[in-house]
Amino acid sequence: MQGRSPSDVIKPEVRRLSAYTLKHVKADVKLDQNENPYELPRELKEEVARRVLDRPWGRYPEFVPHSTIRALANFTGWKEDGILIGNGSNELIMAGLSVILGNERKAVIPQPTFTLYKLLSSVFEADAVTVPMNASDFSFNVDALEEAAKDASVTVICSPNNPTGTLLPAFALERILASTRGLVFLDEAYHEFSGQTALTLLPAHPNLIVLRTFSKAMSMAGLRFGYLMAHPEIVKEIHKAKLPYNVNVFTLAAAELVLERPSIMRDAVQTLVAERERVLAEVRKRPGVEAFDSCTNFFMMRSTKSARELFDGLYAQGVLVRDVSTYPMLERVLRVSIGNLEENNRFLNALDRALEIP
Amino acid sequence: MQGRSPSDVIKPEVRRLSAYTLKHVKADVKLDQNENPYELPRELKEEVARRVLDRPWGRYPEFVPHSTIRALANFTGWKEDGILIGNGSNELIMAGLSVILGNERKAVIPQPTFTLYKLLSSVFEADAVTVPMNASDFSFNVDALEEAAKDASVTVICSPNNPTGTLLPAFALERILASTRGLVFLDEAYHEFSGQTALTLLPAHPNLIVLRTFSKAMSMAGLRFGYLMAHPEIVKEIHKAKLPYNVNVFTLAAAELVLERPSIMRDAVQTLVAERERVLAEVRKRPGVEAFDSCTNFFMMRSTKSARELFDGLYAQGVLVRDVSTYPMLERVLRVSIGNLEENNRFLNALDRALEIP
Repeated sequence: MQGRSPSDVIKPEVRRLSAYTLKHVKADVKLDQNENPYELPRELKEEVARRVLDRPWGRYPEFVPHSTIRALANFTGWKEDGILIGNGSNELIMAGLSVILGNERKAVIPQPTFTLYKLLSSVFEADAVTVPMNASDFSFNVDALEEAAKDASVTVICSPNNPTGTLLPAFALERILASTRGLVFLDEAYHEFSGQTALTLLPAHPNLIVLRTFSKAMSMAGLRFGYLMAHPEIVKEIHKAKLPYNVNVFTLAAAELVLERPSIMRDAVQTLVAERERVLAEVRKRPGVEAFDSCTNFFMMRSTKSARELFDGLYAQGVLVRDVSTYPMLERVLRVSIGNLEENNRFLNALDRALEIP
Repeated sequence: MQGRSPSDVIKPEVRRLSAYTLKHVKADVKLDQNENPYELPRELKEEVARRVLDRPWGRYPEFVPHSTIRALANFTGWKEDGILIGNGSNELIMAGLSVILGNERKAVIPQPTFTLYKLLSSVFEADAVTVPMNASDFSFNVDALEEAAKDASVTVICSPNNPTGTLLPAFALERILASTRGLVFLDEAYHEFSGQTALTLLPAHPNLIVLRTFSKAMSMAGLRFGYLMAHPEIVKEIHKAKLPYNVNVFTLAAAELVLERPSIMRDAVQTLVAERERVLAEVRKRPGVEAFDSCTNFFMMRSTKSARELFDGLYAQGVLVRDVSTYPMLERVLRVSIGNLEENNRFLNALDRALEIP
């Protein structure tokens, strides 16, 4: 190699990026990743293991895993050739953005939101335009989004949004879908906790792409499974950048079994939504802390203390939350996932102590 | 959306592409995907299942799976911060190429080879320059490769190569590494069957990236696991486009257990290499068919019949091979994976009959 650093070959857009990172720390009460605290039933897990042990591991998964896609089609009511499955929904975001974005193409992304959209847009050399949420309540700025989306190749919206917990109303999504010249990627990672979905808009809007994950409500974060729904002509194009055999035999078996038993998920969601409302009401009784409404399994709170101080105060008591104060607009804000009853109570008790720290 | 087809938003480079596809057909003797016919021992599989059942599925895998990376570092002798793991090596090819390739950047790719390299280069809008192998024996055209690689951002070489089975000699790789201004992606998916690796060149060549997979010799195609080795400064950049939590808890557990028992893999490789030489010698006894030397767990053969006719003749007898005759330079060529003894004998018998088809 001719006298220079090998990393100079890396695209400048990438070299400028900071990597998405998360420091792994242990905690008794883990409320930092919006995971579902209710584990799948042991007997379901054992049935998955049995099915997996009975098939060869040395053989590739099916090129198109028809039975899993059929189960998703039954579950969602959307057509099989409009569904693509992924190793987590992140992989489908990457494949989807890679076929749309490139040099001199524009991506519109509300802020603050999940950092991966902007990171990948930069990797693909796109012009990433961010649209701030409304500062008072972190609702989406629909007029600004609609205006920015007009000439965008893609608009990426997480709804309900991570980390704000806020929802883009259906009428607003319809306005954006109607006026943009591009596609709209709608990440519904948390939709189960909102009781809303844009799936009903899909038949009439061939430029809508809906993303789902099994990592949150479905309690399968450790297994990595997500899916994408769109019109078949769009799915066909994204499929070209989706890697073959991307979901392994274990996750395929688990996803199929979970889809056979939707009541497990529904019960957990009900409990988590009720707990979210209880915890929010409790937090609001505390002076010196503001808690924001949420349509997800987490919420944001802002205190008069610095985020680091409150985070450390909670962590000293074994409660791990997420410091999101470095996101745009989120000074002094922490994000707290909803745990099970005991975990939530431990969080509330820890919060009392942490707020009293001088 | 303003009066046009939504797929018009997809990049023209992508719309022009044909998807990578493989029709899934059943067969008694499956010799079409270069899989390892020797399944991992049942008790190892059961131990993986036990470990996985004992951990929560609702929680994300570790952000950086240190114990798996440590096991790979011990196995390979390469440093931990120079290793990246992936959901199959394909994912690492995608992440790696995405941070190097873009508009007006050049990728050099020998032909014929695994189609994914060129497909992804096109998705990333790069200028993909192909360099034909030598027609007589499908050896790499080293002079042409070295010349083309000079001003390339990346040169992607599969060695031993799929589907030709041929190896790039170490001296040739060193020449390319020394003269190129870019990086060299070396896909060693089949290296175990060749007894050679470029790993020894890594310390002296910071522009070399070595890719490995557990889908072939390691008998884990159904589980999806691969890894990449390079200098830490390169790994750091590729890491930015590698999706978080990309390898699930099941595959992490399986990979660690397989790495604890390398003799399983070594025994299978020895048997497969011996079988490859036996099958090659047997095929060469047949008139009307030419078989090419191979450093992998598969080989190519060319017959006087059309590829379709010979493929169908074999398939009619329950033997599934790969028709690679649409690849550049591979008219009338089939690719045959090495199976276990019985499978190989069934292939040889089927070949006798198929060659006699009028």
